[in-house]
Amino acid sequence: MPDSSLTDIIGWFKGLQDDICTSLESLDGSGKFHEDKWIRPEGGGGRSRVIQGAHIEKGGVMFSAIDGMMPETIAKGLDIKPTHFHATGVSIVLHPKNPWVPIIHMNVRYFETESGLWWFGGGIDVTPHYIDTDQATRFHQRMKQVCDILSIDAYAQYKSWADRYFFNVHRDETRGIGGIFFDRLNESSGATKETCWAFVQAVGDSFLTCYTELFHDNNNKSYDDSHQRWQQIRRGRYVEFNLVYDRGTKFGLQTNGRIESILMSMPPQTQWVYNHIPTPESKEAKTLALLKKDIDWLNYKPV
Amino acid sequence: MPDSSLTDIIGWFKGLQDDICTSLESLDGSGKFHEDKWIRPEGGGGRSRVIQGAHIEKGGVMFSAIDGMMPETIAKGLDIKPTHFHATGVSIVLHPKNPWVPIIHMNVRYFETESGLWWFGGGIDVTPHYIDTDQATRFHQRMKQVCDILSIDAYAQYKSWADRYFFNVHRDETRGIGGIFFDRLNESSGATKETCWAFVQAVGDSFLTCYTELFHDNNNKSYDDSHQRWQQIRRGRYVEFNLVYDRGTKFGLQTNGRIESILMSMPPQTQWVYNHIPTPESKEAKTLALLKKDIDWLNYKPV
Repeated sequence: MPDSSLTDIIGWFKGLQDDICTSLESLDGSGKFHEDKWIRPEGGGGRSRVIQGAHIEKGGVMFSAIDGMMPETIAKGLDIKPTHFHATGVSIVLHPKNPWVPIIHMNVRYFETESGLWWFGGGIDVTPHYIDTDQATRFHQRMKQVCDILSIDAYAQYKSWADRYFFNVHRDETRGIGGIFFDRLNESSGATKETCWAFVQAVGDSFLTCYTELFHDNNNKSYDDSHQRWQQIRRGRYVEFNLVYDRGTKFGLQTNGRIESILMSMPPQTQWVYNHIPTPESKEAKTLALLKKDIDWLNYKPV
Repeated sequence: MPDSSLTDIIGWFKGLQDDICTSLESLDGSGKFHEDKWIRPEGGGGRSRVIQGAHIEKGGVMFSAIDGMMPETIAKGLDIKPTHFHATGVSIVLHPKNPWVPIIHMNVRYFETESGLWWFGGGIDVTPHYIDTDQATRFHQRMKQVCDILSIDAYAQYKSWADRYFFNVHRDETRGIGGIFFDRLNESSGATKETCWAFVQAVGDSFLTCYTELFHDNNNKSYDDSHQRWQQIRRGRYVEFNLVYDRGTKFGLQTNGRIESILMSMPPQTQWVYNHIPTPESKEAKTLALLKKDIDWLNYKPV
């Protein structure tokens, strides 16, 4: 099979955005995506789609394909001469209305230079306001299946990377139950470009499976003000992660990207409560206790 | 008059915290400050006081006095050898319940090393959800009076510094109507230490005057959901500034400070709305149009 071309990859990412938006509208039942097309003066552009629905309180499904001369600073970071580059990807964050449904994030991206460098990056991670350990195990099993396309070691490596990346250092808390995170994936991994691409497509395709399950398992659960309050406090942590640590957000803020697309990941109603400590043994306290790195979710046994 | 000693300065800052807390409790009418005393393992500690009142929805008045060996990285930044240092200060952020009352921030601080270096820093800035240009002029007139204690140029210099510092680059918006900001103020300014200290005390003392006026002028105004929504969107910008740019917050997050004290500045109920654009000519749009650097508030004439 010939190497997949940039055009193929861009086409597939656009199709992924379309499929995901169609399915999410159907899942929500009433919300519709609003699209903003944008053009980048230096080259390329994107389609930002945002839904504010009945069940998906705020969600963004973004596609972009940009190109141009690489800024000096980025070339320096890569230890190469500035060259013409292409970058394309799909990026998703969904904030559900029901606190029992987790926040989900997915990103798949591809980068190449005229000088012949290329790599893929991406990941999926799940941020439950309330952790259900069985659901966490099932999600990680799905991630394991996806990673096995690349190699038998990939899941362990990318799961650990997600634990370290999606981490609020200042809180000593993971953002949620993690998932997978990878970057600069290319032939140096030992896999061919076609295998890397098949893996990235599987990551993209797994999004709807994972989210649909999580949504249906939790969205009919009833909740009250106390659950919403906790959801809003957890959303505050999501803001802290995205503004303080998230590479995509920081890169976007520093490079004068389209601000509303970069910050579409910001939650709706959020709050900060001074020194909030959940009641011992409460569901909230149990969730906090599970926001730790290196939990073996595949084989998790509740204590 | 002899140079004011570290002990004098610490004592005065503690007294300032006490006076401000007493007055704010009286202004609020029902809320009481909750105090958390904390000790820093490496030396010193502080008194974090937080109020969640009827009118001050969330406010923090923090005092700290820490000391110890200067971290290598900080010494390097100052181009000195690591030495024993003392740092003390008072820091305040108040988020009012009524959207017509502005958010206010004040900070005064003092730093000295065993090797004989010393300086003061601080500032006050006001972040109205709705800008009243007369109130902005009066606030800046007060800042001018305070700065005149130091020198006739100080206000222009520190007002400009605040415009540049309290600025969300990624939004191309000032945080509010600014105020004054200064750092590394010492004898190199041409003023004696006693004059610098008198100026810093005047900054501290001006806080209650400024806030009491702003509170009484606005707190009896009625508001509805639309005003609260706008307030929450503006609070989102406050979060963006504090997590992305604020030096104190970033320093605290990087140096493993007491996280609840560092993030006491985070607002209560906040929201992010995708691509929110106020109706042309609305009060919200007029406020946005005034979130610009270099407005001459002292001599402002509405157009």
